[in-house]
Amino acid sequence: MKGYVQVYTGDGKGKTTAALGLSMRAAGAGLKVFFAQFVKGQTYNEIKIINNSIPKIEIQQYGRDCFIKKDPQPEDIQVARKGFNAARKKIQSNHYDLIVLDELNIAIYYKLVTVEEVMDLIKDKPENLEIVITGRKAPQELIDAADLVTEMKEIKHYYKSGVQARPGIEF
Amino acid sequence: MKGYVQVYTGDGKGKTTAALGLSMRAAGAGLKVFFAQFVKGQTYNEIKIINNSIPKIEIQQYGRDCFIKKDPQPEDIQVARKGFNAARKKIQSNHYDLIVLDELNIAIYYKLVTVEEVMDLIKDKPENLEIVITGRKAPQELIDAADLVTEMKEIKHYYKSGVQARPGIEF
Repeated sequence: MKGYVQVYTGDGKGKTTAALGLSMRAAGAGLKVFFAQFVKGQTYNEIKIINNSIPKIEIQQYGRDCFIKKDPQPEDIQVARKGFNAARKKIQSNHYDLIVLDELNIAIYYKLVTVEEVMDLIKDKPENLEIVITGRKAPQELIDAADLVTEMKEIKHYYKSGVQARPGIEF
Repeated sequence: MKGYVQVYTGDGKGKTTAALGLSMRAAGAGLKVFFAQFVKGQTYNEIKIINNSIPKIEIQQYGRDCFIKKDPQPEDIQVARKGFNAARKKIQSNHYDLIVLDELNIAIYYKLVTVEEVMDLIKDKPENLEIVITGRKAPQELIDAADLVTEMKEIKHYYKSGVQARPGIEF
């Protein structure tokens, strides 16, 4: 089964959750899944339940969760680099059917990894591997190179009415 | 915790998977989840794995999967009505924190249920319940009434290059 490159981007809600749902669907079909989460470091509820309930999905976090509103620190770069190198090894291992690089677009945006590196990663991927990349601000080069691109477009958001992020719903 | 109404619509990929990912996140936080899937009837891989691995998410299908390219048959209406009545009971039971009505927009579009019924359902929901409604072609009344609306916008899709739906990735 030939694999493609999917991108979920845009300002709307649903990018990471779509990648998670896709990982479940793939695991349900017996496919091997690696889910790498960049930038975020907190152990979110969705990660807890995957680790506890669906061992078929391997999940790793490569982020510190703390720079988003300011500039990245050397530690942020270090952990993103570590994640990118780990993801490259997983991709080249030819062991997986689906690899999710969650929030990689944000890592690119903050220059934790370069677009060129990501393009190389995609170019060299095993033919049967499906790669899913998520995050706001997908660079144009990636959009051009991807096979499927969905923009999660915010039509209306309750944050704007002052609703705070809630456990189990937003994280 | 006050609950809201979320809508995922648009032609792009990721609506059902986002609702699934959100269900996992909620279950991971200990919330009680009911996931009703309209129109679709096939036992998809994502449903198999939830049933087998995450009993905290109750999942039911109310569809026959076979009318999508032509007009709905009496059996399609019957099973959608059954689902809608079941969903109403679940909503009014005050037992759940998150209820997903997957593909309900399609059921509305094909007149299996009416917009008015859906608006009544939302109006009467328990205050703390989060409702997520997915599917293409969300009616304007629902968009107006919802608190959060994301349009999954298709920027590029490999179906157009002749790629067929693949197990574990598309279903």
